[in-house]
Amino acid sequence: MAKKNKPQRPKARRPRGFEDRGADILRAERRLINAAFAVYDSFGFEPLQTPAFEYADALGKFLPDEDRPNTGVFALRDDDEQWMSLRYDLTAPLARYVAENYDALAKPFRRYQAGSVFRNEKPGPGRFREFVQCDADSVGAASAAADAEMIMLAAEVMRSAGLKDGQYAVRVNNRKLLDGILEASGVPNTDEGAEQRLRVLRAIDKLDRLGAEGVEDLLGKGREDESGDYTEGAGLSAAAIKSVLGFATAPTEDRAATIRSLEKLVGQSERGGAGVQELMQIDTILNATGFGDDRVAYDTSIVRGLGYYTGPVFEAELLADIKDRKGRPVRIGSIGGGGRYDDLVSRFRGQPVPATGFSFGVSRFLSALERMDALEVAAKPPVIICAFDRSLMGDYFNMAAELRAAGIRAEVFVGAGNVTKQMKYADRRDAQIAILMGSDEMEKGEVTIKDLYLGAEMAKAIESNEEWKESRPAQETIARANIVAKIQDMLG
Amino acid sequence: MAKKNKPQRPKARRPRGFEDRGADILRAERRLINAAFAVYDSFGFEPLQTPAFEYADALGKFLPDEDRPNTGVFALRDDDEQWMSLRYDLTAPLARYVAENYDALAKPFRRYQAGSVFRNEKPGPGRFREFVQCDADSVGAASAAADAEMIMLAAEVMRSAGLKDGQYAVRVNNRKLLDGILEASGVPNTDEGAEQRLRVLRAIDKLDRLGAEGVEDLLGKGREDESGDYTEGAGLSAAAIKSVLGFATAPTEDRAATIRSLEKLVGQSERGGAGVQELMQIDTILNATGFGDDRVAYDTSIVRGLGYYTGPVFEAELLADIKDRKGRPVRIGSIGGGGRYDDLVSRFRGQPVPATGFSFGVSRFLSALERMDALEVAAKPPVIICAFDRSLMGDYFNMAAELRAAGIRAEVFVGAGNVTKQMKYADRRDAQIAILMGSDEMEKGEVTIKDLYLGAEMAKAIESNEEWKESRPAQETIARANIVAKIQDMLG
Repeated sequence: MAKKNKPQRPKARRPRGFEDRGADILRAERRLINAAFAVYDSFGFEPLQTPAFEYADALGKFLPDEDRPNTGVFALRDDDEQWMSLRYDLTAPLARYVAENYDALAKPFRRYQAGSVFRNEKPGPGRFREFVQCDADSVGAASAAADAEMIMLAAEVMRSAGLKDGQYAVRVNNRKLLDGILEASGVPNTDEGAEQRLRVLRAIDKLDRLGAEGVEDLLGKGREDESGDYTEGAGLSAAAIKSVLGFATAPTEDRAATIRSLEKLVGQSERGGAGVQELMQIDTILNATGFGDDRVAYDTSIVRGLGYYTGPVFEAELLADIKDRKGRPVRIGSIGGGGRYDDLVSRFRGQPVPATGFSFGVSRFLSALERMDALEVAAKPPVIICAFDRSLMGDYFNMAAELRAAGIRAEVFVGAGNVTKQMKYADRRDAQIAILMGSDEMEKGEVTIKDLYLGAEMAKAIESNEEWKESRPAQETIARANIVAKIQDMLG
Repeated sequence: MAKKNKPQRPKARRPRGFEDRGADILRAERRLINAAFAVYDSFGFEPLQTPAFEYADALGKFLPDEDRPNTGVFALRDDDEQWMSLRYDLTAPLARYVAENYDALAKPFRRYQAGSVFRNEKPGPGRFREFVQCDADSVGAASAAADAEMIMLAAEVMRSAGLKDGQYAVRVNNRKLLDGILEASGVPNTDEGAEQRLRVLRAIDKLDRLGAEGVEDLLGKGREDESGDYTEGAGLSAAAIKSVLGFATAPTEDRAATIRSLEKLVGQSERGGAGVQELMQIDTILNATGFGDDRVAYDTSIVRGLGYYTGPVFEAELLADIKDRKGRPVRIGSIGGGGRYDDLVSRFRGQPVPATGFSFGVSRFLSALERMDALEVAAKPPVIICAFDRSLMGDYFNMAAELRAAGIRAEVFVGAGNVTKQMKYADRRDAQIAILMGSDEMEKGEVTIKDLYLGAEMAKAIESNEEWKESRPAQETIARANIVAKIQDMLG
């Protein structure tokens, strides 16, 4: 590289809010995504991958809590002066794709995708500015069957991740029910009421975090938090607040009972009634296919923060094996969700294009699995073939190739250092087995095999260093020809 | 969404140079990456994933043909005024990672990664601004064995992609050989000569495209291309140009013969001699492990465009089954490469940290495989279960679940439309089988199965529409209970 103006040495550091991810979590991620993809494939969905960048106007602004323009996304100006943004989810780019290729696509167009999304937000613990989402979407189907399919997919993905029934629940609600409540409270379901409605949704979405009292403020006059930040309220009347809160905090019953309660509550409003009808149709399909109340529940507190949902909404939640005081499984947290978004493609086309989808946060899912001790264990560490005679390098690699051909991970030490250093390396790699072969042994057709796990066990039991050296525990010299069989035996 | 100021309808379009990728290519990509990962795993490499963004100064400027600052990368200023760039490869971020975590890492640190990289360049046919690379790297090992391992990995990845020996070659050279030539020609291997040396490398890298004559200009006074763009030359003397060109265009022999020729040519220069020694050591390992001249060749025309290489460099190339006039397999093109980059981590640390790696372009690899007709075929299309009685939706989904449990992709039509429309959909999905069940059939415990492939065949043979309708070809009514067995049978 050119060093005319000798540059200062750069500091090795990551930008704020971005993470390096290591072997265990990446192997678990690969398993999780492959399992989810297998479910999507089996349902007849097809992979599609849109790029990381979109034109800013094509993405739109649907991020929650976003009041200023251009916050929340990473945007830059292209050579041709147009603003491009990195995608903040996988749904808005899908809407662009479908609108761009509408006539060429067989409808319903059902696709899945996993990939990084970017949020230009203040990073915090466990909150990154780049993270992986995994989505399935169905565009062109207005039927409740398409929503039911999404809900089933979500539940099947939980199973494919190795969870048992009872360790997860998909919670379902319908935005139309709330629309019905609001209509009855004088907030019309028109463009004019859109902003107020969105404030109501975001308020309810904070029930878990703020409790009923905090949400009451947000539904009414507004709320100042501990840091002094003020959030404007939705400005509902006291009566409207009461009915919205009553709806959102209704006790959870089984699906059939919930449908009956909802029918009484919002059945008389046209939009609310349509919402109940959809939940009934979804329930029929779930019952026919054996998705019981333990896997899919109806829950009126679910709203989802994103502005673009128009009908059924759902959230997937992991549950601990322990119960709370009311005998319900303790919630580990939401790992994803979705819903119907009938207006997102029509933004481009000006004609209705129904759509529904489900998205899960891969990292959130993995860390929830970790908290539940349900994360699959990592790959076995490799067998380490020590190298201390450079003229034997070819033979070391040959040995490794033989082991690999038998399905055993094997690594020749290609660094620098004597046996002690190489043993330390094997130790840091958590290797169970190290193989040693010098030219003497090579000539005799022998190799020495160390069992490092057993060695560590025995070291605890042996008292003096002298004794240790003499006994050479957990070490064995065998014929070179028997190496694969011997190691297969040791690894069980 | 808020519509206070009713916005104009956005146009659905992708930013220039970015692509949407579809089912077939994504399935092939997943297979290719999984196969490569399995090879890396078997060699004892571990996955690592660095983020998409890095601080601009940490990435450095190593892109070829990049004379102005900040070209080639997508950069933006973070809230704290620091410049961040999207990674242009996976190697520079790895160097940052290793430097940042140096003491915590067991050395050699051997990792693999696949992911999108970004180049802010003029897009062209097959040339995108976001594309996927797949890398393996070994940091902390100065030995030729570490390079040999990379070369073996590259060859094994070719095999894992389904290629037969003879359909690919890894071509190897060593930057030190050229350093030796240049030293003898009066271009010193010091910081002062760095820029001139880089120009020489980039000139040689264009041999394929410009031929010896164009490269001669670039090595000397410079060159103006057809568009009038002028590239400054390396300013070598006529004698130096002759010896550099002689070196780079030396005929390809087997590895042993090439080593003998090179020894004569550059053996007397210290640096050149060291380069030959390394090639000898690599050759010994390759021979011992059976990597013949057909899989790994030594080729002095290989230089690689990137500025950071310091020792062995290699390129993986796909070869057609047809031969050229000289009897050599026709080159399909390079799909990746790598080499030793001992200075990249030391940029941060100020002390030498040896490293070597191999990277392949996933899309380039896939399109080369496609040109060779070596791309595996796509997944089977799903069985389509038609839905024309809404009250039977649950039964349709039940049927689909049964088929899926037997490992058959199955899809319930969740869109809108009559049987004709649903048959058209099945056709566009390339489905072989469609299942029809109305309430009459449901009551009788029967379903109707259509073989759409057979139907299309027969339609060609049948003359009149009347005849067609009467014979109902390729359609059969069977007992609902036998559906899985029947379809397994039809799919073979």
